[in-house]
Amino acid sequence: MAEIEKKSDGILQTMTVRVIEPEKPLELESGKKLAPVDVAYETYGKLNEAGDNVILICHALSGDAHAASINSPDDSKPGWWDAMVGPGKGIDTDKYFVICSNFLGGCSGTTGPSSINPASGKPYGLEFPIITIADMVKVQKLLLDKLSIKGLLAVIGGSIGGMQVLQWSVAYPDFVKAAIPIATTTYLGAQSIAFDAVGRNAILADSNFADGQYTEGKGPDGGLAIARMIGHITYLSEQGMREKFGRELRNSHNYSYDFNSEFAVETYLDHQGQSFVERFDANSYLYITKAADYFDMGKDYGSLKKAFANTSCRFLAISFTSDWLFTPAQSRTIVDALVANNKDVSFCDISSPYGHDAFLLEPDTLGSFISGFLDAAHRPEANKKSSKTIIHGSSPELDIEQATRIRIDYEEIESLIEPNSTVLDIGCGDGQLLAHLTTEKNIKGMGIELDQDLVRACVNRGLPIIQHDVEQGLENYTDKSYDYVILSQTVQTIKNPEKVFTELLRVGRKVIVSFPNFAHWRCRVQLLFQGKSPVTRQLPFDWCDSPNIHCLSLKDFDRFCRKLSVKVEKRIPLNKTAFSPIRFAPNLFAEQVIYVTSKK
Amino acid sequence: MAEIEKKSDGILQTMTVRVIEPEKPLELESGKKLAPVDVAYETYGKLNEAGDNVILICHALSGDAHAASINSPDDSKPGWWDAMVGPGKGIDTDKYFVICSNFLGGCSGTTGPSSINPASGKPYGLEFPIITIADMVKVQKLLLDKLSIKGLLAVIGGSIGGMQVLQWSVAYPDFVKAAIPIATTTYLGAQSIAFDAVGRNAILADSNFADGQYTEGKGPDGGLAIARMIGHITYLSEQGMREKFGRELRNSHNYSYDFNSEFAVETYLDHQGQSFVERFDANSYLYITKAADYFDMGKDYGSLKKAFANTSCRFLAISFTSDWLFTPAQSRTIVDALVANNKDVSFCDISSPYGHDAFLLEPDTLGSFISGFLDAAHRPEANKKSSKTIIHGSSPELDIEQATRIRIDYEEIESLIEPNSTVLDIGCGDGQLLAHLTTEKNIKGMGIELDQDLVRACVNRGLPIIQHDVEQGLENYTDKSYDYVILSQTVQTIKNPEKVFTELLRVGRKVIVSFPNFAHWRCRVQLLFQGKSPVTRQLPFDWCDSPNIHCLSLKDFDRFCRKLSVKVEKRIPLNKTAFSPIRFAPNLFAEQVIYVTSKK
Repeated sequence: MAEIEKKSDGILQTMTVRVIEPEKPLELESGKKLAPVDVAYETYGKLNEAGDNVILICHALSGDAHAASINSPDDSKPGWWDAMVGPGKGIDTDKYFVICSNFLGGCSGTTGPSSINPASGKPYGLEFPIITIADMVKVQKLLLDKLSIKGLLAVIGGSIGGMQVLQWSVAYPDFVKAAIPIATTTYLGAQSIAFDAVGRNAILADSNFADGQYTEGKGPDGGLAIARMIGHITYLSEQGMREKFGRELRNSHNYSYDFNSEFAVETYLDHQGQSFVERFDANSYLYITKAADYFDMGKDYGSLKKAFANTSCRFLAISFTSDWLFTPAQSRTIVDALVANNKDVSFCDISSPYGHDAFLLEPDTLGSFISGFLDAAHRPEANKKSSKTIIHGSSPELDIEQATRIRIDYEEIESLIEPNSTVLDIGCGDGQLLAHLTTEKNIKGMGIELDQDLVRACVNRGLPIIQHDVEQGLENYTDKSYDYVILSQTVQTIKNPEKVFTELLRVGRKVIVSFPNFAHWRCRVQLLFQGKSPVTRQLPFDWCDSPNIHCLSLKDFDRFCRKLSVKVEKRIPLNKTAFSPIRFAPNLFAEQVIYVTSKK
Repeated sequence: MAEIEKKSDGILQTMTVRVIEPEKPLELESGKKLAPVDVAYETYGKLNEAGDNVILICHALSGDAHAASINSPDDSKPGWWDAMVGPGKGIDTDKYFVICSNFLGGCSGTTGPSSINPASGKPYGLEFPIITIADMVKVQKLLLDKLSIKGLLAVIGGSIGGMQVLQWSVAYPDFVKAAIPIATTTYLGAQSIAFDAVGRNAILADSNFADGQYTEGKGPDGGLAIARMIGHITYLSEQGMREKFGRELRNSHNYSYDFNSEFAVETYLDHQGQSFVERFDANSYLYITKAADYFDMGKDYGSLKKAFANTSCRFLAISFTSDWLFTPAQSRTIVDALVANNKDVSFCDISSPYGHDAFLLEPDTLGSFISGFLDAAHRPEANKKSSKTIIHGSSPELDIEQATRIRIDYEEIESLIEPNSTVLDIGCGDGQLLAHLTTEKNIKGMGIELDQDLVRACVNRGLPIIQHDVEQGLENYTDKSYDYVILSQTVQTIKNPEKVFTELLRVGRKVIVSFPNFAHWRCRVQLLFQGKSPVTRQLPFDWCDSPNIHCLSLKDFDRFCRKLSVKVEKRIPLNKTAFSPIRFAPNLFAEQVIYVTSKK
């Protein structure tokens, strides 16, 4: 353990440790055996006394153990995730002890196809066995054992690193407290496999490939560069490329009328291809992309739901809106499978123009999610109460009247919830209600919210929160999986209330709905005598800029419930100031109303 | 002209004609000269006596002159667009005389890099001059001159073929009556240039390329296959690939743990690469993709708007929703530039999962647009009245009451329009009102509509119609470009009426708006006495499934006009049956209302 202390001068050496000795080979998923296995790794920060602050970072295709800091005084480039890992950064090395290792099959210190094959005395080349993501994770576990790490606070990674994160959560469920899979998937789709295959084809077709037994300086550089160029196109978004390069020409306003690279995007790709060739091994490229293509958790476990059945960590899944290689939809598939298992999962599709590369290029936004989630995972009790209140709606600024309205609504709803129950809050805002219910009534809560900032607020409170538009349905929530589903002040803004309400009644034993009453006497008077669309305290918007797309009264909702054969268990008409329900002519005097409903 | 008759047995030979003699070289856009130039072409159908039924088809990257029919009795594959071109098909050879030629730089009969360079007696290879889309079109024009064609009814093409169509419209404005650019763009973006560049790199890096002087059977097959594979990924959509291949393995349920192609998508790409190598020339691939990269109408003419300024044909631009290579947004850019020039343009973004290949794979839908547009272009008067009435809204079925309501609305609006004026109808449905105004009042009309079927109905009527969501604004419509803008029965369904209405007032001298009156006495009574959200003849929807997202009355709209400083020139309150306006207490008795407004 002596070597895993933070260096005082900020300069780190990548270390290497043997995790598999020649005489006791590693059994691979393919059935083949491999020995010896060495692992290159770096560490940042300090292991605390409890040993509960360890974070493992898993790198992507072209990464290595050198995640942060510099390796020597003249190292011009810090580690590949230096923007995220360090003192006070998203992954705070003042708090956490961070480990990153080069994965199996890599070419930066860990055993891979460029390592010497003991059987031949030459580099393995294509004699290296096909490895999988599971094999990589197995080797990472051996490294942690070697370092006497007893458990991980979190395992974090993007892209192929995210695949490793997912694999960790299912392969070593008791070892991992939190998992942060970023811009990743449980399996590649046909398009991604196709891009990988063309890249491999370019390498394999290169006349210098020599069946993988090329020598230093005479490798399949052309093929590898082409593979890298294809990769780079897929890492950026169309928008990102358009904004960065457009149709700009490198040296002139006029075309050169030859086949030299002249568009800026061409010279960029040339450069990316060339610099990759200088630092990466073509055989490793083949093995790693193959491992990515093979990764398929659903196939391994029978279904994706089954794959996640035994996980016990909490999850924070992150995708990026413009990522078309590891798409938001693929991250949602992960989240859906976890939800179907009733796991503790949060999800945000971070808005970014940077495509797949956003996991490297959005350190501030990404870091703000990661740091809050890690803090909550590390010290669960500290977080829940501390967060600033934002409440429902995307604007953090509320006037006092609105805030009062929501408070009355919340207090009333809170009184309806049984202790120790499970609660799903649709449009949960910053999680105020859920957090309060968690503290006061010991409920197990989950929030659904659309706004990115509000989702982050919930993450910071340590609440499971999923960024989702409830209009899309709740397909992956099992029947009666929550005691209560809450829909507070939202039904009048939903496009298809019938579809959504039916879904809520399927998922919850009871559905609690609150909304402003359109038949309040003030509304009636305005329409009757003034002949205009009502504008009141509860309906404070002019007709042309109202978020409310439906007008409904208690009577309308009663009829709606009859139509859907819904049992109205309670109907609590409220007005602005009264903290007690209104008994007389509620459809006339209630400004808002709370319904408790259930399926007949 | 003898040879351009349809063959009786349905079998066609590709013909070749010399359009540039050795002594009189073709001047290319690059400034270089080229001679001789031969062109391979095919024709289908018969030239009519007036000579006004000629259609030119421009092919894409890998196409050739053989667009339809078969070339010999044992020809196993008909021409590349046989699904579209033939008797009774989208491009009906019973009506039209269709010509398709292999473009300059191709490898299927027309002069290209594999032709013999008279200077050396060997194939040109890289000695062939860089050619452009404009050069290709120039050669097509020479062919038509040779065939004594005096003008084109239409020029049609997809992808790079669409680029030629656009070039035709600007280079020979008087020669072309109608242009149908499909799934194309006026310039490639950075991402498409990048894909092309990587493909070219793969060819150039192939050790068999030999600076372009490879010999038959010993060419850069590996590189060309990789270029084609990359191309194929971009021709399909992610969804299309997912549905066609998914993660299916070719021969087994289990992984082979080697680098052979095993996923179905891999073997598909292998096959596409291989079969392309057998029929295509690598040098042609270089020249054609370079021509596509260079195409940039905005650059050539100073701006895209200027590029289209002198066109005189009518346009039908088509894109496909899932096409990410030549995107719908790029087609919209073409349409915007034409709109900014006040040109006769129609546009539809056809819903399809097939990606860029949809222009080959959606012959029925695409054909239904093309055939209607061609008919209207060929015989303008015949079309306008014949079409079946569909009216507003996506459902063709309307009850009588609704139809009456719309008729009253329409008759009233019609009476407000001055003869010979220009009219933009927002949400124009099947174009009934516009067609009527065109016939009765000789207006020049343009429609905007979202629904694909209604857009097609308008195309069939010969009306300029643009598929567009007015909520996105009307940025490219110049100020006061229409005498009237009509917004009939739509304002209550618009999310942001203020933004939209402001745009309409900018674009039109007068804006005519009609909507149902929410303050009609029936509504007031229902809310007052029954305490429910009104359901009336004019507002026939229950609160939970209404397309109307705003409730507004005459009074609300009056206030709205005051707020936006809009002048209300006329206010015509109507009820269901009265064909004359209501004079007494209109906000109480009008079921609907028509406003004529203008900017103060």
